[in-house]
Amino acid sequence: MSQPEIPKKQWAQVIEKTGGPVEYKEIDVQQPGPDEVLINIKYSGVCHTDLHAVNGDWPLPTKLPLVGGHEGAGVVVARGELVKDVEIGDYAGVKWINGTCLACDFCQQADEPLCPKALLSGYTVDGSFQQYCIAKAAHVARLTKDMDLAAVAPVLCAGITVYKGLKESGARPGQTVAIVGAGGGLGSLAQQYAKAMGLRVIAIDTGDEKKKMSIEQLGAAEFVDFAKSENVVKDVQAATEDGLGPHAVILVAVNEKPFQQAAEYVRPRGTVVCIGLPAGAYLRAPVFETVIKMVTIRGSYVGNRKDSAEALDFFRRGLIKAPFKVVGLSELQSVYDKMVKGEIAGRYVLDTTK
Amino acid sequence: MSQPEIPKKQWAQVIEKTGGPVEYKEIDVQQPGPDEVLINIKYSGVCHTDLHAVNGDWPLPTKLPLVGGHEGAGVVVARGELVKDVEIGDYAGVKWINGTCLACDFCQQADEPLCPKALLSGYTVDGSFQQYCIAKAAHVARLTKDMDLAAVAPVLCAGITVYKGLKESGARPGQTVAIVGAGGGLGSLAQQYAKAMGLRVIAIDTGDEKKKMSIEQLGAAEFVDFAKSENVVKDVQAATEDGLGPHAVILVAVNEKPFQQAAEYVRPRGTVVCIGLPAGAYLRAPVFETVIKMVTIRGSYVGNRKDSAEALDFFRRGLIKAPFKVVGLSELQSVYDKMVKGEIAGRYVLDTTK
Amino acid sequence: MSQPEIPKKQWAQVIEKTGGPVEYKEIDVQQPGPDEVLINIKYSGVCHTDLHAVNGDWPLPTKLPLVGGHEGAGVVVARGELVKDVEIGDYAGVKWINGTCLACDFCQQADEPLCPKALLSGYTVDGSFQQYCIAKAAHVARLTKDMDLAAVAPVLCAGITVYKGLKESGARPGQTVAIVGAGGGLGSLAQQYAKAMGLRVIAIDTGDEKKKMSIEQLGAAEFVDFAKSENVVKDVQAATEDGLGPHAVILVAVNEKPFQQAAEYVRPRGTVVCIGLPAGAYLRAPVFETVIKMVTIRGSYVGNRKDSAEALDFFRRGLIKAPFKVVGLSELQSVYDKMVKGEIAGRYVLDTTK
Amino acid sequence: MSQPEIPKKQWAQVIEKTGGPVEYKEIDVQQPGPDEVLINIKYSGVCHTDLHAVNGDWPLPTKLPLVGGHEGAGVVVARGELVKDVEIGDYAGVKWINGTCLACDFCQQADEPLCPKALLSGYTVDGSFQQYCIAKAAHVARLTKDMDLAAVAPVLCAGITVYKGLKESGARPGQTVAIVGAGGGLGSLAQQYAKAMGLRVIAIDTGDEKKKMSIEQLGAAEFVDFAKSENVVKDVQAATEDGLGPHAVILVAVNEKPFQQAAEYVRPRGTVVCIGLPAGAYLRAPVFETVIKMVTIRGSYVGNRKDSAEALDFFRRGLIKAPFKVVGLSELQSVYDKMVKGEIAGRYVLDTTK
Repeated sequence: MSQPEIPKKQWAQVIEKTGGPVEYKEIDVQQPGPDEVLINIKYSGVCHTDLHAVNGDWPLPTKLPLVGGHEGAGVVVARGELVKDVEIGDYAGVKWINGTCLACDFCQQADEPLCPKALLSGYTVDGSFQQYCIAKAAHVARLTKDMDLAAVAPVLCAGITVYKGLKESGARPGQTVAIVGAGGGLGSLAQQYAKAMGLRVIAIDTGDEKKKMSIEQLGAAEFVDFAKSENVVKDVQAATEDGLGPHAVILVAVNEKPFQQAAEYVRPRGTVVCIGLPAGAYLRAPVFETVIKMVTIRGSYVGNRKDSAEALDFFRRGLIKAPFKVVGLSELQSVYDKMVKGEIAGRYVLDTTK
Repeated sequence: MSQPEIPKKQWAQVIEKTGGPVEYKEIDVQQPGPDEVLINIKYSGVCHTDLHAVNGDWPLPTKLPLVGGHEGAGVVVARGELVKDVEIGDYAGVKWINGTCLACDFCQQADEPLCPKALLSGYTVDGSFQQYCIAKAAHVARLTKDMDLAAVAPVLCAGITVYKGLKESGARPGQTVAIVGAGGGLGSLAQQYAKAMGLRVIAIDTGDEKKKMSIEQLGAAEFVDFAKSENVVKDVQAATEDGLGPHAVILVAVNEKPFQQAAEYVRPRGTVVCIGLPAGAYLRAPVFETVIKMVTIRGSYVGNRKDSAEALDFFRRGLIKAPFKVVGLSELQSVYDKMVKGEIAGRYVLDTTK
Repeated sequence: MSQPEIPKKQWAQVIEKTGGPVEYKEIDVQQPGPDEVLINIKYSGVCHTDLHAVNGDWPLPTKLPLVGGHEGAGVVVARGELVKDVEIGDYAGVKWINGTCLACDFCQQADEPLCPKALLSGYTVDGSFQQYCIAKAAHVARLTKDMDLAAVAPVLCAGITVYKGLKESGARPGQTVAIVGAGGGLGSLAQQYAKAMGLRVIAIDTGDEKKKMSIEQLGAAEFVDFAKSENVVKDVQAATEDGLGPHAVILVAVNEKPFQQAAEYVRPRGTVVCIGLPAGAYLRAPVFETVIKMVTIRGSYVGNRKDSAEALDFFRRGLIKAPFKVVGLSELQSVYDKMVKGEIAGRYVLDTTK
Repeated sequence: MSQPEIPKKQWAQVIEKTGGPVEYKEIDVQQPGPDEVLINIKYSGVCHTDLHAVNGDWPLPTKLPLVGGHEGAGVVVARGELVKDVEIGDYAGVKWINGTCLACDFCQQADEPLCPKALLSGYTVDGSFQQYCIAKAAHVARLTKDMDLAAVAPVLCAGITVYKGLKESGARPGQTVAIVGAGGGLGSLAQQYAKAMGLRVIAIDTGDEKKKMSIEQLGAAEFVDFAKSENVVKDVQAATEDGLGPHAVILVAVNEKPFQQAAEYVRPRGTVVCIGLPAGAYLRAPVFETVIKMVTIRGSYVGNRKDSAEALDFFRRGLIKAPFKVVGLSELQSVYDKMVKGEIAGRYVLDTTK
């Protein structure tokens, strides 16, 4: 394959200072280091985390100036001299974890997301809201040529994250999992992964539209409307077949209250998995009931490389269909505006050519 | 073996109403049902839970009138007609779990302590603060003839409970576990079990006496004095060899604060096990750090029958030496008085002949 | 509910001596013991094991005279005085494990099938080839009123067994499992369970009919015809997406050769699960490759009570449809004759009223 | 730290052709690549595998000419430009796994030893029977300055391998493990690791000297002399406290027979771990008993990097004392001669300065 022509300049969305704004402008294209690849990003999903990076409201500072974005799907156009298993022309994805040391105690046990030296795309290194993005070859997501690059973009963070959370829940095929925030971007993916993993789903959210989508399109067995319910704990337990509560609860909601109910309605010996990151929120559970019921509460961050490959394979096999809407890279600010207003259903994906 | 003579009357400590007092008096000896055994209790340990049963300050009502006690060691003197694998003359122990249905979903998965129909010794059925106590044969602890019945009594609840907690922590031999409340009755047993399981122990408590006991007698590698420490989180992490924090934390303390620090100093991917039951206490952990560090918080109740047999086997092999003091059954009230004042080091064991 | 009328006499198929024949005749109806139930069997599946019981070619002697059968579905008509959680009129199933001690080391860890005192239906105690059959209440399968008793019968042994094997394989949703003997009675159930558990199936068997059934009806992703293949090892590996071999292999074949190929084509770190019991067969694997590839070979017997309940729940939810043919109980010998000739596709189920 | 002076030439033991001999001669010192380190080997253990490399009797060809050795302990004297977490002057060890791709499916799940591109020290790349040896920085064993480099050498392969095998066995603290070949180099290390992991050991070997060493020095609870025993299966089972057999069996023997007995005496649900690699040997187990007892047979290769770090930490804490004898690097052939004659007790370690 002939070497693709790589421009010197490219379009990108850049944050100069915490608080924003994001500025759409031309910047230099970077060169990959010896263990890196350069990816021509075609599409990039927009995630809540990108907005946290702009606002700086997480207890972890970002690089500045910063190109955000960590759901980038594209084509490899250059690679460093040590890179042997990624070819020019391959489809590849940029994930939240851009690179890690691959040698520390956590990397050694395949917990790369916990590596103290992890590079975070669109946060501590420049991410996928640009046309040409760098990532460590060992960490880049391997995409297959039959994948739609726009459709796969949201899987690269949202999909991997909920899949990881479902794995961490320990729920086995045939068991019941409650998904809190089931109608949102993460939640609708979580429902699909859960179903593909042989789990029975109780979707928890509010509104008839979300109920309809959950039951009719996403395969949920039951829907509990937390706003209409007079007793969420009882209703969730009643939605399980023996009334003892779901084996696991996946929390992708972005407010605090559901984090406290989950420990009450989860089945004895069950697991509550926290994924969503409401700013400043606390887990809170009564010691007595937690002990007597032997409940497990577990934080789940993003997937490691293996989880990522598995999550992408479910997508490749046609089992995951995340609803998304494509707009130009230049329109990022308007996406953030919608996000702030809570007006987004599904995922926005940016086309880097526009 | 000739049938032992069983008296009609016996001495017992009885609570007539919630709040106490306990009354030392003669009551009838009961007959075992078809799947039960009658045990002539020789010694019975006294546990904080017994005091909770008197005071009724747990969200679960007791039987009334009630004979408390759930660490009873003695000799089998009668059995029902369905009992085939316990013999008259066998040594046996009465545990917190007196019996369960052995058929429900939880019993089927060897989580008998979660059985909704569980009978609790000294709480929902009469316990071991009497000379002749009934228990379901399938649940009775099997003791060997080489065991000292006074010494084994505290193992029947405290020992089993901390052993279970250590198992639930998932800590593997060679890893480090912090024990919070290390110098108390549960804590000193936990240190010994941890060492016997190949774990490295950081003892957390306060006072030079407890430090000395932990390091010199119980095998702890490090001691952190929470009262003297200016920063418990930093000091506990510094006590681990790579500074990343202990792989697991065992909470046997009876107040709330340590439950909230543990999630901070535990190693990423580590597990915080809650065992102690401070009345009205809450677990509380920041969502962001819990997720980013992938921390697990897990309630651990008492052991199942298998855990119990394993915990007793460590004792039989001489690896567990719980400090205890023997007084007469008639002196139970004075033990409670000491307990209320926090004056107990180690465990009190009652001799039922006095 | 009024007490059902229970006759004194009933029809049964009885073996008087090892080697057979089975004799269709009237015998007494038995009374349940205190911890037992009496089930009016409506339908009973016929399993290869029943033929082994007749022929006495397993290294474990049967009761004599013997009523065979261990896939019996019916209605509870009487119960002993200790039985509290099974009601007269409930649907219930008789499984291979008729009862166990519920107290030994294996029962304590929920491995009841390994209990040294296990009672085996239709083998060491009388089974379901009669109209009224006894089983221990704690072991009886709980069937729901919406279940077709003829259809569920084969699930009670064949279904539970393959489901257990799939669980023991450790294969996770999204991974690939090869099923050897995929077109037979056990194999066709295994394919359905595997699919319901989110696994990708490579069916291994021979003949275009079995290929068609596997791909079109049972959901297999690939079919390898071992008789047509020039190199089964290569072809099975080629049927996996990365060519590295299936994550697990389920052996339900009844001859020896596949037991030896499986260790060769399984993926490194993969698991070969042996379920089928060809008389006198040996597992054989090269030490060097087994070690270098870190292969696990594991024997899987029948499920415990929890596995059984789970396997039945998959059936109840409509995910498992075992093909079967109903004939009268009186025709058992002719079913055996077909079995000996290898003429059975799917499962035969006996109607006890005929 | 000032850059150490690295000579151009060094002494090494070189094999020019399969079958040997090894030749002690001067060769060039190599330069590390960008992700590699150069280690000044001080001591190197000699392993059976080194002899297999000379003889070429394993089904995997070696590099030629070849410098053998894969238990090398020394000091880092140079590093490539990408290496950031190993310093010049650090103590480091060369293991069997010299390097892997760190990106394939197996590396992603922390199974680096299964990486298809793994580089094997002293087999597919030059090893530690030279004064200056190269290894991939991410794979080099991190040794601490308080470690005796001669004593730690045998831990780098033999220690890691048996520790990994014990982990793979799934045996938990308090359970019983039988070690077959307990008196040899691997076996004596296995006994010490097992004890440090809280396991109860049954040592299986022959001769009063090995019995004495096992019981008195290595901490075994029981010794079974397979040569004197009339029934090894019965005697091993009798050496467990309940007569049901050991929970796990570790096979480090170098002949075939013990591989076949182990499946018979292991406890139901137990695990037989194969580590030793007798040339041309086969595992063989009866299907019926394997299934009925639910036995697991598992091949265990060398440890991954995490296992290696853990195994070394047990050594650092003084829990592992492998008997060894130091001779000069120049004497390697005489060590091989003794190995062929079976005259070696403990491990030989080569001093590279002689």
